[in-house]
Amino acid sequence: MPSDLPLRPVTFSPSIPEIRFIEQTLLPEVYKEESATTVERLALAIKRLEIRGAPALGVAGAYGIALAALTSPSTEYTRFINDIENAATTLRATRPTAVNLFYGINRALSAVKKHNDIDTAKTAAIREAEEVADEDTRTCHAIGEHGLTVVPHTCTILTHCNAGALACREWGTALGVIRSAVKNGCIVKVYACETRPLLQGARLTAWELARDGIDVTVITDSMAAPLMRKGKIDLVIVGADRITSDAVFNKIGTYMHAVCAKAHSIPFYVAAPFSTFDEDAVESDITVEMRSRDEVASFGGKITVPDEVAVYNPAFDATPAELVSGIITEHGIFKLPEDLIKIKIIRTNTKGTMS
Amino acid sequence: MPSDLPLRPVTFSPSIPEIRFIEQTLLPEVYKEESATTVERLALAIKRLEIRGAPALGVAGAYGIALAALTSPSTEYTRFINDIENAATTLRATRPTAVNLFYGINRALSAVKKHNDIDTAKTAAIREAEEVADEDTRTCHAIGEHGLTVVPHTCTILTHCNAGALACREWGTALGVIRSAVKNGCIVKVYACETRPLLQGARLTAWELARDGIDVTVITDSMAAPLMRKGKIDLVIVGADRITSDAVFNKIGTYMHAVCAKAHSIPFYVAAPFSTFDEDAVESDITVEMRSRDEVASFGGKITVPDEVAVYNPAFDATPAELVSGIITEHGIFKLPEDLIKIKIIRTNTKGTMS
Repeated sequence: MPSDLPLRPVTFSPSIPEIRFIEQTLLPEVYKEESATTVERLALAIKRLEIRGAPALGVAGAYGIALAALTSPSTEYTRFINDIENAATTLRATRPTAVNLFYGINRALSAVKKHNDIDTAKTAAIREAEEVADEDTRTCHAIGEHGLTVVPHTCTILTHCNAGALACREWGTALGVIRSAVKNGCIVKVYACETRPLLQGARLTAWELARDGIDVTVITDSMAAPLMRKGKIDLVIVGADRITSDAVFNKIGTYMHAVCAKAHSIPFYVAAPFSTFDEDAVESDITVEMRSRDEVASFGGKITVPDEVAVYNPAFDATPAELVSGIITEHGIFKLPEDLIKIKIIRTNTKGTMS
Repeated sequence: MPSDLPLRPVTFSPSIPEIRFIEQTLLPEVYKEESATTVERLALAIKRLEIRGAPALGVAGAYGIALAALTSPSTEYTRFINDIENAATTLRATRPTAVNLFYGINRALSAVKKHNDIDTAKTAAIREAEEVADEDTRTCHAIGEHGLTVVPHTCTILTHCNAGALACREWGTALGVIRSAVKNGCIVKVYACETRPLLQGARLTAWELARDGIDVTVITDSMAAPLMRKGKIDLVIVGADRITSDAVFNKIGTYMHAVCAKAHSIPFYVAAPFSTFDEDAVESDITVEMRSRDEVASFGGKITVPDEVAVYNPAFDATPAELVSGIITEHGIFKLPEDLIKIKIIRTNTKGTMS
């Protein structure tokens, strides 16, 4: 893969038509692009986590509807719409909690339904899907630009999990800030926490930063605090899965980094699109997804925890807002709870766009 | 294996003669006892980490000398001593940094050399090796007893890595405190951090506590802080590899737990024999062992970090003394730097014993 092109985990070719994607479960051992020419294959890719990351799922969902429109054999309008509705149902059933996925599906579906003839509807589906994708690109680049103000010219940044291009259409959120800083001439060294249990930091963040020639070193999650103590970390930037008025929900391990960053007076930033805000909710409203024991208790077929021993495996943790130096978004950097009203106003003014 | 007997990773049968040991690299998938009837097989077991843990290595070293004495074919005294010196050299070459190993070897070797006839020397070697082992047992039980004062009747304890019976002759240090508390009627729930990269917590601590019927749950290292925030951890107890006048060196990850424990006002204890003290040294005197990238970059043959990406893999970290609520030893509980003089006096008075 040529590394001077932007890394895009999901792309669409209407003329074939096919959705191409990077099979992320194989990384970093194997870089392999797969192709989905049917909605069923795309749904499988989402289920299997071959495509992952909330913004990337939004893009895939929209592309999926466009693919359904282009591959529908129906020449009668009602049947055509029925085919696309069925495709939407198939895609929605893949991952029930990914809001971006529903958003992408719904945007493309609405665009189709605005038109009464099949050919115009097909064109509208393609256009809307590309607009969903382009919107995500613009959002990530805007996050990167706004993040520049918090990145020193020469610095070492700690990150956790993968909030990168592989989780978006391109560029990334936390890694988008790092990419923008590097593009702007900053000399950035990155420590990527491996991110147990699923190792998205070791597997994906390390891979995509190395691909772009950015200096990256992988550590276990437990090595971040000693590096902070030695003065080796200048700032922390992570992504977010959901941001309530009082807390940031992100991959398990984020809270520990926030506590340690505070203890060492290191700035701790979250980079996320506005679509991540759930600002009318508070931390206690949110149920954290508990995942299977296998993720912790085995690896590559090898048992690492005795069968009779319990495992506790929450997917996310909550970092209270007071530990967060700022939330870097496409509309600027915000601090909670101080900027809650500002955030609500911007949300109202931008309703209907994914970010 | 009957679980009502004390768990002993290394035992010695002079009448055969053989050293039996639990092959710890196979746990928790397979419980297998191996037998070393030669010093060469014992040396291999130490090199391969089939036997591990500083106190356990001291016991193994002393047993190794006794085994060498009993299996020496020499009937002439000088040749007999020469055989044992060779065995000592073989055993010392296995793991150059384990001081306890040298200590156990030297204790048994000195005992042999005190006697001029081969039969008496053989008996002395057996006796001294058993005394080294018994001393470790007494030390661990004394640590357990002293630790009782810091364990509430009903509590949840977090631990990291394996400072258990599998690392000692029996009972353990940090896990010795937990065993003593349970034996004393305390209702204890344990969270065992898996301890990346080598998973001694998931593999060994979980296995040995479950074997003894103690309630244990495995978490990734990154899940400790969120549990602390939820009020689910009452105290932390870990072991130590070396204690200077200003810091505790222990398995990587320990420092992060200490920082988070302090942030949540949770007591943080270290349990270790006096032999772990290096109280004339300070933190900056100590070189932390850097281990191979493979430990982080692959698992069970699967590559988890791209080949071109660097890995930083220190074996230990240093926790400054001010974050440690107390050091539980066989001579009582001490706080640094306040109790430094007390520690030095006890050390002087107990010189010549391993702990």
